[in-house]
Amino acid sequence: MSLISKNMCMKSYPKGTPTPDNFTMTTTDVAPAGDGEITVRNHWMSVDPYMRGRMSGIRTYIDPFQLGEPMEGGAVGEIIHSGHPDYAVGDWVMTMLGWREIFTASVDSLKKIMLQKVDINLLPAQNYLGVGGMPGLTAYAGLYKVAGFKPGETVLVSGAAGAVGSIVCQLAKADGATVVGLAGSDEKCKWLESHGVDTAINYKTCENLTKALQKAAPRGFDVYFENVGGDMLKAALDTMKMFGRIAACGMISQYNNEKPVPGPDNLVMIVGKSLKIQGFIVSNYAQYVPEYLMKLGPLMASGQLVQQETVEQGIENAGTAFLRLFSGDKQGKMLVKLT
Amino acid sequence: MSLISKNMCMKSYPKGTPTPDNFTMTTTDVAPAGDGEITVRNHWMSVDPYMRGRMSGIRTYIDPFQLGEPMEGGAVGEIIHSGHPDYAVGDWVMTMLGWREIFTASVDSLKKIMLQKVDINLLPAQNYLGVGGMPGLTAYAGLYKVAGFKPGETVLVSGAAGAVGSIVCQLAKADGATVVGLAGSDEKCKWLESHGVDTAINYKTCENLTKALQKAAPRGFDVYFENVGGDMLKAALDTMKMFGRIAACGMISQYNNEKPVPGPDNLVMIVGKSLKIQGFIVSNYAQYVPEYLMKLGPLMASGQLVQQETVEQGIENAGTAFLRLFSGDKQGKMLVKLT
Repeated sequence: MSLISKNMCMKSYPKGTPTPDNFTMTTTDVAPAGDGEITVRNHWMSVDPYMRGRMSGIRTYIDPFQLGEPMEGGAVGEIIHSGHPDYAVGDWVMTMLGWREIFTASVDSLKKIMLQKVDINLLPAQNYLGVGGMPGLTAYAGLYKVAGFKPGETVLVSGAAGAVGSIVCQLAKADGATVVGLAGSDEKCKWLESHGVDTAINYKTCENLTKALQKAAPRGFDVYFENVGGDMLKAALDTMKMFGRIAACGMISQYNNEKPVPGPDNLVMIVGKSLKIQGFIVSNYAQYVPEYLMKLGPLMASGQLVQQETVEQGIENAGTAFLRLFSGDKQGKMLVKLT
Repeated sequence: MSLISKNMCMKSYPKGTPTPDNFTMTTTDVAPAGDGEITVRNHWMSVDPYMRGRMSGIRTYIDPFQLGEPMEGGAVGEIIHSGHPDYAVGDWVMTMLGWREIFTASVDSLKKIMLQKVDINLLPAQNYLGVGGMPGLTAYAGLYKVAGFKPGETVLVSGAAGAVGSIVCQLAKADGATVVGLAGSDEKCKWLESHGVDTAINYKTCENLTKALQKAAPRGFDVYFENVGGDMLKAALDTMKMFGRIAACGMISQYNNEKPVPGPDNLVMIVGKSLKIQGFIVSNYAQYVPEYLMKLGPLMASGQLVQQETVEQGIENAGTAFLRLFSGDKQGKMLVKLT
């Protein structure tokens, strides 16, 4: 008896902004788990900005997606066949074999990248792709470990309504920070302010970002959590305090550039203000998972931290979901529900 | 009996690159030291790139020079009158009252900025303005404390033939580094290679800086000591290793821009390679003076570290000396001999 899985594959590497034509669906027969294997039906899959880097055919810190093969990414699903004693039918697991409905793989090979049992009674399954997973740890590690945020400081967040940014804002607020968030629509700004952000600024309609930040935080920022780059980095450099720290998590404004775009014209501020800019990749901060979860539990229980999410339905729409990361037409964590 | 001092003053704040017209000479009568004061005849004065920041009328991390007043900066001189029991005629001191031949000031007011006795039998007097002073400490602090350089690493230095860069190169070489230096003339490159630098590159005649760096250090750089900014920062970002560290000491290529100039187009490398960029100002590293001098002594005694210098003669030429920092028409530490 075999199972049918629909999968989303890379048809061609995008030049500039990806389009639906860069994606193609395949249908495959999946054999049920043999010895040492598990078969998983994915219920949720994640699309994340970092995946753009895997769509170039060039190795960066991670291998490119192979053309014609199902892509990879975080997914949460239920085990429907098992040939491994540690994994039972009915267990839920998080793996990196997203962008497909069903797969069979050996436990050993899954563990090399990620294989984690998840308790869907503790958190809704999709939260393991957001606040309880990689974006949550990214927010925590970037804010506390990379930027060295201390309670009560003044924090600027770009991409503030995104999967990571929205968690950064809420974590900082829970620790008594003054938080200014940059987002791309009035609706996003409204959500941010209703969740405690002191000032949310719509950068698309703001005439002068530096002046707006100076008004929102007259004494400047101790910490900038960088998700966007470009003009937002420029305005942040203008308004950081002496000895300010910048956690560079991403620069989504740059990912689809067909030709490189010049950077901010005020980098000399790095010297004059003794600023620190530290890039980071969440996989190097896995040791902080327990510490983060200890922090997360009470904050979720008290409602101080919530997962904001936008959901596309069905594997057919996984490409569309991915494109929405760059158009900005979504709020919080972008997810695809596969069942 | 009064003394006559010629002084160099700021006549007008430069727009863009400073010109001789921005400077003017004055002659003043200096009263001999009264109670609690000393009178100093300066023998050497320093011109440094950071002074450009004080020529704008805008307060940065340091106050602007006042128009019509003698400028300030590091100087070494001999006490010729003293009204203070701790300072005797014939003692040599380093102060921040450069750009003038003779001055009288209270010991208390001098101490607020800098007043340090120097032993001219231990080091030539002018070395206290170079390898034994601020540029030396800048090199040491930037390399070891800011960039966290470890012996044997691969180091890139821009402004490598400058006052600070030339010391960075020699310190790193003495600790077994592979060192690549960027400088602006073949003559400078020759000096660097004759003092141990593995590869010195004339950036003015180099067609493709990134390729030249890749050739010089195929496995990339652990550390970049940044004195210049602009194209050199871009090439450095291209060629840093994962987790590379950049000590941002200065960006001299940017100081005379009349209009802001866009930055490098590859800042996204900061994220992808988990790079750290840390700006710094030497005055925040004064606690490392003893540690640095302990390191410096044996290196100078063994000839592993030498002060390269270019000297202008007389206070009349102090402005010219300053302009040579930006034209690049000098080697190593730029000094003015006043006696």
